[in-house]
Amino acid sequence: MAENLSFVLRAVKDVAFEDRPKPKLRDQHDVIVHVSQTGICGSDVHYWQRGRIGNYVLTGPMVLGHESSGVVAEVGSLVKHLKVGDRVAMEPGVPCRRCSHCKGGRYHNCGEMIFAATPPWDGTLAKYYVNASDFCYKVPDSMNMEESAMVEPVAVACAINKTADVRAHQTVIVMGCGPIGILTQAVAKQSGARRVIGVDIVQSRLDLAAHYGADETFMPPRPVPGVEPIVHAEKVAGLIKEKFNLGDGADVVLECSGAEACIQMGIFATKPGGTFTQAGMGKENVLFPITYVCTQALVIKGSIRYLNGCYPAAIDLISSGKIDVKRLITNRYKFEQAEEAFELVRQGRQDVFKVMIEGVQ
Amino acid sequence: MAENLSFVLRAVKDVAFEDRPKPKLRDQHDVIVHVSQTGICGSDVHYWQRGRIGNYVLTGPMVLGHESSGVVAEVGSLVKHLKVGDRVAMEPGVPCRRCSHCKGGRYHNCGEMIFAATPPWDGTLAKYYVNASDFCYKVPDSMNMEESAMVEPVAVACAINKTADVRAHQTVIVMGCGPIGILTQAVAKQSGARRVIGVDIVQSRLDLAAHYGADETFMPPRPVPGVEPIVHAEKVAGLIKEKFNLGDGADVVLECSGAEACIQMGIFATKPGGTFTQAGMGKENVLFPITYVCTQALVIKGSIRYLNGCYPAAIDLISSGKIDVKRLITNRYKFEQAEEAFELVRQGRQDVFKVMIEGVQ
Amino acid sequence: MAENLSFVLRAVKDVAFEDRPKPKLRDQHDVIVHVSQTGICGSDVHYWQRGRIGNYVLTGPMVLGHESSGVVAEVGSLVKHLKVGDRVAMEPGVPCRRCSHCKGGRYHNCGEMIFAATPPWDGTLAKYYVNASDFCYKVPDSMNMEESAMVEPVAVACAINKTADVRAHQTVIVMGCGPIGILTQAVAKQSGARRVIGVDIVQSRLDLAAHYGADETFMPPRPVPGVEPIVHAEKVAGLIKEKFNLGDGADVVLECSGAEACIQMGIFATKPGGTFTQAGMGKENVLFPITYVCTQALVIKGSIRYLNGCYPAAIDLISSGKIDVKRLITNRYKFEQAEEAFELVRQGRQDVFKVMIEGVQ
Amino acid sequence: MAENLSFVLRAVKDVAFEDRPKPKLRDQHDVIVHVSQTGICGSDVHYWQRGRIGNYVLTGPMVLGHESSGVVAEVGSLVKHLKVGDRVAMEPGVPCRRCSHCKGGRYHNCGEMIFAATPPWDGTLAKYYVNASDFCYKVPDSMNMEESAMVEPVAVACAINKTADVRAHQTVIVMGCGPIGILTQAVAKQSGARRVIGVDIVQSRLDLAAHYGADETFMPPRPVPGVEPIVHAEKVAGLIKEKFNLGDGADVVLECSGAEACIQMGIFATKPGGTFTQAGMGKENVLFPITYVCTQALVIKGSIRYLNGCYPAAIDLISSGKIDVKRLITNRYKFEQAEEAFELVRQGRQDVFKVMIEGVQ
Repeated sequence: MAENLSFVLRAVKDVAFEDRPKPKLRDQHDVIVHVSQTGICGSDVHYWQRGRIGNYVLTGPMVLGHESSGVVAEVGSLVKHLKVGDRVAMEPGVPCRRCSHCKGGRYHNCGEMIFAATPPWDGTLAKYYVNASDFCYKVPDSMNMEESAMVEPVAVACAINKTADVRAHQTVIVMGCGPIGILTQAVAKQSGARRVIGVDIVQSRLDLAAHYGADETFMPPRPVPGVEPIVHAEKVAGLIKEKFNLGDGADVVLECSGAEACIQMGIFATKPGGTFTQAGMGKENVLFPITYVCTQALVIKGSIRYLNGCYPAAIDLISSGKIDVKRLITNRYKFEQAEEAFELVRQGRQDVFKVMIEGVQ
Repeated sequence: MAENLSFVLRAVKDVAFEDRPKPKLRDQHDVIVHVSQTGICGSDVHYWQRGRIGNYVLTGPMVLGHESSGVVAEVGSLVKHLKVGDRVAMEPGVPCRRCSHCKGGRYHNCGEMIFAATPPWDGTLAKYYVNASDFCYKVPDSMNMEESAMVEPVAVACAINKTADVRAHQTVIVMGCGPIGILTQAVAKQSGARRVIGVDIVQSRLDLAAHYGADETFMPPRPVPGVEPIVHAEKVAGLIKEKFNLGDGADVVLECSGAEACIQMGIFATKPGGTFTQAGMGKENVLFPITYVCTQALVIKGSIRYLNGCYPAAIDLISSGKIDVKRLITNRYKFEQAEEAFELVRQGRQDVFKVMIEGVQ
Repeated sequence: MAENLSFVLRAVKDVAFEDRPKPKLRDQHDVIVHVSQTGICGSDVHYWQRGRIGNYVLTGPMVLGHESSGVVAEVGSLVKHLKVGDRVAMEPGVPCRRCSHCKGGRYHNCGEMIFAATPPWDGTLAKYYVNASDFCYKVPDSMNMEESAMVEPVAVACAINKTADVRAHQTVIVMGCGPIGILTQAVAKQSGARRVIGVDIVQSRLDLAAHYGADETFMPPRPVPGVEPIVHAEKVAGLIKEKFNLGDGADVVLECSGAEACIQMGIFATKPGGTFTQAGMGKENVLFPITYVCTQALVIKGSIRYLNGCYPAAIDLISSGKIDVKRLITNRYKFEQAEEAFELVRQGRQDVFKVMIEGVQ
Repeated sequence: MAENLSFVLRAVKDVAFEDRPKPKLRDQHDVIVHVSQTGICGSDVHYWQRGRIGNYVLTGPMVLGHESSGVVAEVGSLVKHLKVGDRVAMEPGVPCRRCSHCKGGRYHNCGEMIFAATPPWDGTLAKYYVNASDFCYKVPDSMNMEESAMVEPVAVACAINKTADVRAHQTVIVMGCGPIGILTQAVAKQSGARRVIGVDIVQSRLDLAAHYGADETFMPPRPVPGVEPIVHAEKVAGLIKEKFNLGDGADVVLECSGAEACIQMGIFATKPGGTFTQAGMGKENVLFPITYVCTQALVIKGSIRYLNGCYPAAIDLISSGKIDVKRLITNRYKFEQAEEAFELVRQGRQDVFKVMIEGVQ
């Protein structure tokens, strides 16, 4: 039997199972986690198919996976809040703790972050994963290990809301109703937002959104031949404001699609002085209404990964029943079927929402 | 002799002097100001030459001018802080005071702002101007009326700094060394910025910047044929970080040029989690590195006109000698020469910085 | 029949019904409201019994009442969002709109606020009340006029939460379970607070709190003879942290009792770097653990009246069913019984929560 | 010759020189610093005379001193930004880096901070001190080692200003003109404050303040027999507002004296909605105008030690010449004279400002 069976991306479009040595504690604050469940994220598939995201380029074999839950198998001598057998959700990025970003409360900006399944760092699709203990969060008994793996996308949604400073009584538009968009809508609603409007171009996603966190949904009309796309986007933003009676715009727009048209619509749908937050990733550069941003005194923010406090918040939202993540899991695979699971996600079928891979026993 | 000689834009490229009735107090909080000096702003010239800025379109004759000082000639019955004869700097935009923007402390976002020389509202290039008394700020004896007219651009620079939340010990890059850029650098320095770096492509402007508020200056290398402009911009940003030893970027970048290349450079020169503020206006839409904004968790803000408190701050900066605005006034005209003054500004000569028009005696 | 029957405080403990002239519009933005329902507040009773609150001293006859709803009876010529017959909740304080507080978004700090039933300004316990139209908020058909009068205390609770910047996923302790305390708990919960803990020394109030917005409640142990009260308070804070497993304290403490012991307990129960907000009013000065505030880097804030946006937020909370204010109204009186209503509130009986006076038909 | 001569507090009022083993690197990020200069702080003297501050109680021998500069003598294998021979200012508190305070950007709130000369942790009055490398800041050649030791109190002053969010164009009152008060005034001025007013009851300190960072100074009148102290304090606050033409108060008040009367005056001198920050430490509990805080919607904050970024800011202020710390050093001692130096500070003479102890060669 393998010591530490791992699902490895060896090169672009080339994955394999390897038996790797069980990881060791790197310092007295570390823990070893026996991985229970791992969700597949678009970025995992992206590395598989393209070998790079932005400046992160695959240069050698790398274990995939970063949305995982597990059971503590070993603890460092200085770890106080965890013991062997504890069930945890794992935050997959550990910062340097020493730079001005880390010490200033913005560890997501740390330039020396070790992040699972981001080259050159191995991910969590292995039997064992070593992590800093303070990035492993004990989950209550009421949460199973699938829900615990789902803490990761909920934490992303919490970070988007926190970055945008979404708060009670605001009107929030969320562009995109994929997994992150849907969860972002639910977190906004649970943050007391007065109204949450979900936008997508796929009807089945809008239907799910309407039964999840959104109060209302909107499908933008198709581009009009002969009309400049950005002019069309401004018109659609006008339609949204009119249809939902938003006056001069939404308090907050959260962009979770990465589509250029949605970015443009979202900017134009933000009220003067309001906040637009970019979380989706698509084209590197887009045509952007900078003069509108200037004259309307908008605030545009980028959201990446998680902020301090997002994992505990996500665990609370799930364990309290405020957000039901089980409904979002549509497909389940054994560890040995990992490649099939990836292939399913790659196909992008509308009936596939969240795919989960069980850990090695 | 004319009752209220006014410099009127009748249609695109068609200005004339007209005698208009002296304005009346609209309510008991108003004052009538006898205008002393008026600076010319790019936007005045823009209306003259093109008849529109964004959604503001000239549809009838309009008095030009909005950067003015003057002497109080008449006061409403409820005005307490001003009396006839007081010398004032005039903030040229009066908001509705009743909308959620006004009541929320963001009157610059008011959709019903009455703004001098913005269609359909008449400007200040007349003998008399009626204004809300709380937008007229008494200036100390130590300031002359030219300096008092210069309060307007200094207040714009204060608003840019305040929008970006520039504070002590930060490193600040200012893109553009025109009048607003230069003043923005000076305000940043007077706000305790550790280092202020001015960027421009005109050497004479860099020279002025270096003797005004900037600690250091930089002229970006020219675009390279065959290199995508945005790729070039990212490289230039790298050069700036290296040359000035900025590590992963500046705390704050203030964009006062409106040039697409400068916007791009400025974004790439901002440190992770840092703030970029757009104040310059050029093309409506630009190619924008949205993924970079997202992954670096940047904050992008638009700055427009003035925020509450900017006029008093500007008066303090000038009257205390912290900012010497007299050095920026290069040309002076009599009221009757107003068209010549506008023509001079239109030509955009490098030896012309700020042009002042004296009021009607 | 009287033109404008009014309930007037003529001197300390001396109230009477007077017929006063119907008020007139003071400017084109005003409306006249036919008052429908008015809740009684502690401050009304305080003026009746003592003739003063802080620096506000009764110097002549004053109409009482400030928590009112009504129907628009007349509108000024510039009023756009209201018409005769509209049902409204009335914000009872109108600021000057011109001072730096008003223009800076803090109109609650305006030194020239006209506030109903605060000397020398008449209140709303009359047939008609004149108000600025932008401080009259249309209520949806789903809300009756009692609920519309209850917008006032809900808006106070919103202001307390907003001042403290309560946000999703926080742990919040509310000292005091009277009407404002209970509503403050409910607003905190609807703002996404993870846990809301209500504290009071009256069991019936704790019971109500537990069925309203609080997740948990706590009755502090009585003072111990021979133990300094502030030492006792620190111990009780320790008990609270321990009982509710709060670690080093609550994220936010909202003080709605005004009792010295509660203020002290609340400070000691706030986590390092956390926020304590004072809203209750009791003794002018209290013994205060200033060194603890210093070493723990706490933030202490005062909350007074309403902030911009609180009335719309309160209407939304009530009309959406998120907060059920009807349950809090325990006693109802006709206008002619106003003195009986005041007397009931004065007695402070535990079964009396919110008392409502119907307007003059 | 001693290996690591140290100045040890063995018990209350009992100090001695001991030779202790040279410290070892605790991990690969540590450095050993050969201490050059150490300033004496009131807290050092407090431990010497009383053996405790708040909950920190001397339970065994402890090396004194925490305001030190030095030369790097040894570096851990992962230290990149320092090498042997580098001259550094040392931040004396190293937090756990793992708790929610640390990860949230508030490491000054860390409950597991290791702080020099705070029981049970040894201080810097020794030949060698081991510190985390990221809390050792290289100083430029232009700064000598005395100035580098003075970085500590300047960093405290930076933290006070940062906590209060002092910014350009504000009016700032600083209560107390001792070393921290004086430096706090200077930092406020260098942050662009419009006016800085220093308050003290010792004329020589006011004189120094007036020639250092304060624009104006004020000596409060003595208490009046028969007038309650807090009533007197409110009257004095009124005098301050009147004398300095502050309208309804100062934007910011920074309390650096710890005296009850100054705390009260400072609160009453803060404008509605303004910020009062407590930094001085005196009595644990004071009589506090909580109702005033409430009705004026004040913000009260505690400032303790240093925030992220304060050491670099302080180094910049000193090395750029913006703050001249050399003028504040009045007395210098050899290491062997450490007890004499402490005795001098204990006496509290008005001609003694900052006392410096040279390190062991």
